[in-house]
Amino acid sequence: MNYDFATRMSVVKPSIIRQLNTMIKENPGTLTFGGGNPAPELFPIKELSRIGFEVLNQDGRDALQYDTTDGIPPLRRWIANRMNSRQQTNYGMNNVLISSGAQQAIDLVARVFLNEGDCVFVEDPTYVTALNAFRTYGAEIIGVETDEDGMCVNALEMSYEKHPNVKLMYIIPDFQNPSTKSWSTERRRLITQFACEHQIIIIEDNPYHELRYEGSAQPSLKAFDTQGVVLNLGSFSKILCPGLRIGWVAGDEKIIQKINISKQSSDLQSNSLTQRMVWRYLETQDIDEHIHEICELYKRRRDVMIEAINCFFPSTISYEVPKGGLFLWMNLNRNINTQQLFQKSLENGVAFVPGYAFYVDGRDNGTIRLNFSSMPESRILDGIERLGTVLKH
Amino acid sequence: MNYDFATRMSVVKPSIIRQLNTMIKENPGTLTFGGGNPAPELFPIKELSRIGFEVLNQDGRDALQYDTTDGIPPLRRWIANRMNSRQQTNYGMNNVLISSGAQQAIDLVARVFLNEGDCVFVEDPTYVTALNAFRTYGAEIIGVETDEDGMCVNALEMSYEKHPNVKLMYIIPDFQNPSTKSWSTERRRLITQFACEHQIIIIEDNPYHELRYEGSAQPSLKAFDTQGVVLNLGSFSKILCPGLRIGWVAGDEKIIQKINISKQSSDLQSNSLTQRMVWRYLETQDIDEHIHEICELYKRRRDVMIEAINCFFPSTISYEVPKGGLFLWMNLNRNINTQQLFQKSLENGVAFVPGYAFYVDGRDNGTIRLNFSSMPESRILDGIERLGTVLKH
Repeated sequence: MNYDFATRMSVVKPSIIRQLNTMIKENPGTLTFGGGNPAPELFPIKELSRIGFEVLNQDGRDALQYDTTDGIPPLRRWIANRMNSRQQTNYGMNNVLISSGAQQAIDLVARVFLNEGDCVFVEDPTYVTALNAFRTYGAEIIGVETDEDGMCVNALEMSYEKHPNVKLMYIIPDFQNPSTKSWSTERRRLITQFACEHQIIIIEDNPYHELRYEGSAQPSLKAFDTQGVVLNLGSFSKILCPGLRIGWVAGDEKIIQKINISKQSSDLQSNSLTQRMVWRYLETQDIDEHIHEICELYKRRRDVMIEAINCFFPSTISYEVPKGGLFLWMNLNRNINTQQLFQKSLENGVAFVPGYAFYVDGRDNGTIRLNFSSMPESRILDGIERLGTVLKH
Repeated sequence: MNYDFATRMSVVKPSIIRQLNTMIKENPGTLTFGGGNPAPELFPIKELSRIGFEVLNQDGRDALQYDTTDGIPPLRRWIANRMNSRQQTNYGMNNVLISSGAQQAIDLVARVFLNEGDCVFVEDPTYVTALNAFRTYGAEIIGVETDEDGMCVNALEMSYEKHPNVKLMYIIPDFQNPSTKSWSTERRRLITQFACEHQIIIIEDNPYHELRYEGSAQPSLKAFDTQGVVLNLGSFSKILCPGLRIGWVAGDEKIIQKINISKQSSDLQSNSLTQRMVWRYLETQDIDEHIHEICELYKRRRDVMIEAINCFFPSTISYEVPKGGLFLWMNLNRNINTQQLFQKSLENGVAFVPGYAFYVDGRDNGTIRLNFSSMPESRILDGIERLGTVLKH
C-alpha cells in the first residue's frame, strides 16, 4: 500500500546526526566526530546508581507512578534559582516546565505558537533538528545573517520588512551550534529590544552555557526582556547526561500554561523516576565541581584536536578556536562535495557532520563540524589523522 | 503582553484528568476515582531498584548516553514476540518503535498522517487526550456509533459517505476507555476489512489488553489486516508502571520509518535508562506472574466497588460489570449537571471523572467514570459511601 502521509513529511527530513548514531552503533570501529555526545567516562555512574536505588527505595511509589505534567516542584525551583543566579533572569518555580530533553521544549513551543505559513527566524547555519520541529507545524524558516557578535540588527530589520508574519526567533547565544560563536552583551540587548517592539517570541536555546573554557558568562537575552517575549531552554544532557532525558523551558507563566496543555497530548509528562534522580543528584552532589571537571576535560580534548588538525590537515583550512561547547566548525576553503567526503571518510573509518546539514537551504559551502567531547585524546588523534589522509587525497 | 498563540490552542483543551492529578497532589486527603493510576503497592519497587543499580553498574555508559531514536533492539524484539504470541500479529523488531508512553505514539501517528482538515473517526465516548493530539494537527473528529460488539459497520459506512477525507480511525478494542466494552472478533474483522478497502489507517490503542478478569483474549485487528493499515499501540504503564514512560507503536515498516523521523524532532529518543530497566525486568522476572497478581487485585477491587455501589448509590443508576481494565462506567439516569456534581463531590473529599470529558461534543448525559485500580478496598468503600451521600442529596 502507498501511504498517504501528511504534507509535512515531505519537508521534515531525517537528521543526518541521528542516522550517524545508528551507523556508528552498527560499526563500532568507526571514530566519530559526528553527534554531540558528551564524554561517557565523566557520567557519574556510581553516584547515579546509588541515587536511583535510594529514590526507588524511599520514594518508589511516586517515582514509578503518573505525575503532574509540569514536573516535580523541587527540580523546577532549582532550575529557576540556577538561571537567576547565572543568567540574570527572574524566574520562580511556576515559570519552569520540565520537558523530555530540550528537543521536546523546542517542539512544544513551536506547537503552541505556529500556524501554517508563519515565519521563524533563525541563525544560519543552526541546529538542524530545531528546523524540523518548526517545519512540522508548517513554518517558513528564514535564515538571518550573523556576524562575530550574534544576529545582525540590520539583517533582522530587513528580514522583518519582508516577513512581518514572523512569530518566533530561534537562537543559540552561547557557543552556537554549529558555528561555535557567542553573542556579545550589546547584541543580546539590541535583538531583544527589537523582539519586544515587534512582539516576536525568542526561543533562547542554551545547552552549552555552562561549558565555557575561556572568557566570562553573558546574561540571558531574558535580562533585557521588558515584554515577556524570551523563552529559555536548557538541559541536563551536557552537564550530567543525556540518557535521562531531562530538559526544561522557562518563560512567562501564560506561555508555560499553554505549553503544559500541549505537553499533555504530546507525552502526558516527563519521566517520574529520572526527574527525581536528577533532583537528588543536584541536592546531594556538587554539580559545579562536576561541570568544572567536564570543562577541564573538554578543553584538553579541544586543544588536542587543534594540534592534530594543524599537523594532519591541509593548510588551506580555517577555523576559530571555540571558547566553549562541544564542536569545532571548519571551513575547508575549497570547492568540495562534503557529502562525498563524508562517504569516503566513513569508508576510512571516521565520521563527521557535513556543514550543509545545518543550513536552511542545505547549501554546501565546504564546511564541516567536528565534535571533540566524546572520544579520548588518542582516538581524537587517530581520527584526525584518518580524516587528514582523506582530505589530502 | 497578549500572546498570539497558534489557532490549535483554542481547540486543544486542558485534560480534566491531568488537572485532577494536580488537585489531588495538593489535597492528599481526597479519595479519587479519577485518573487511571495503577495500584502503586504492586509496583515491583525492590526488583526495579536492584535492576536500575545493575543496569547502571554494568551498562552505565550506554544507559546514560544518547541512543537511537527507535529504541533498544532487545526490547523491540520482546514486544514483537509478545504481540505475535498473544494477539495474532506477525511483527519483527523493525516493526516496533519505542515511544515515551503510548500517548506519544498517538501524537506521532497523528503527526505523520494528518493534514489540516483531515477527518479522524473515533468511538464516542473515547480517551480524551487522544482527541487533543488529533486536534493539534487540525483534524476534524467524528464520533462513530458503537454497540455491544464494537464500532457499528453501518454507522461507519454512513460516516464514510459524509467524510470520505477520513485518514485515521482511533479505537480501543479491549475494555474501551471509558465505556469498558470489548469488540467481538467478527466486528474486528469487518471493521478492518472496511479500513483496508478504503485505505483508512486504524490506530488500535490497547493499554488494557492484558488486564482481563473474565472471558478469553481476542485477536488484534491486525490479524485481519491485508493492506498494512493497522497500527498497534501498547504500553508498560498498566502492566509494570507508568513513571518509566515506556510505550510503543508497531506496524508496517514504511510507517514506522516515518514515525522515526517525526520522533527525532519531537524528543530525539525515549529514555535510555528506563528502556534498559524495563528490558532487564522482562528478562529476569516473571511478567506473567506479575500481571496475574495485578488482575487478581483489580478484580477484587472491582467487586468491592460494585458491592459498595449497590449499597450506597441510588437504585436508579445503571452500569455493566467490566470484564477487564481499570474503570467502571456508570449512567446516573437522571437529568443532572455532572460538572456541578464533580465540584460538590470534591468539596466532600471524593473525585471522579464526569462523562462529558470523553464525548467528542462534550455532551453531558449523566455518565461518570470511576477508577477501581488505584485505591485499597477500604478507601474504595469510603469513597463510594461519600459519593453515594452526595448523589442522594
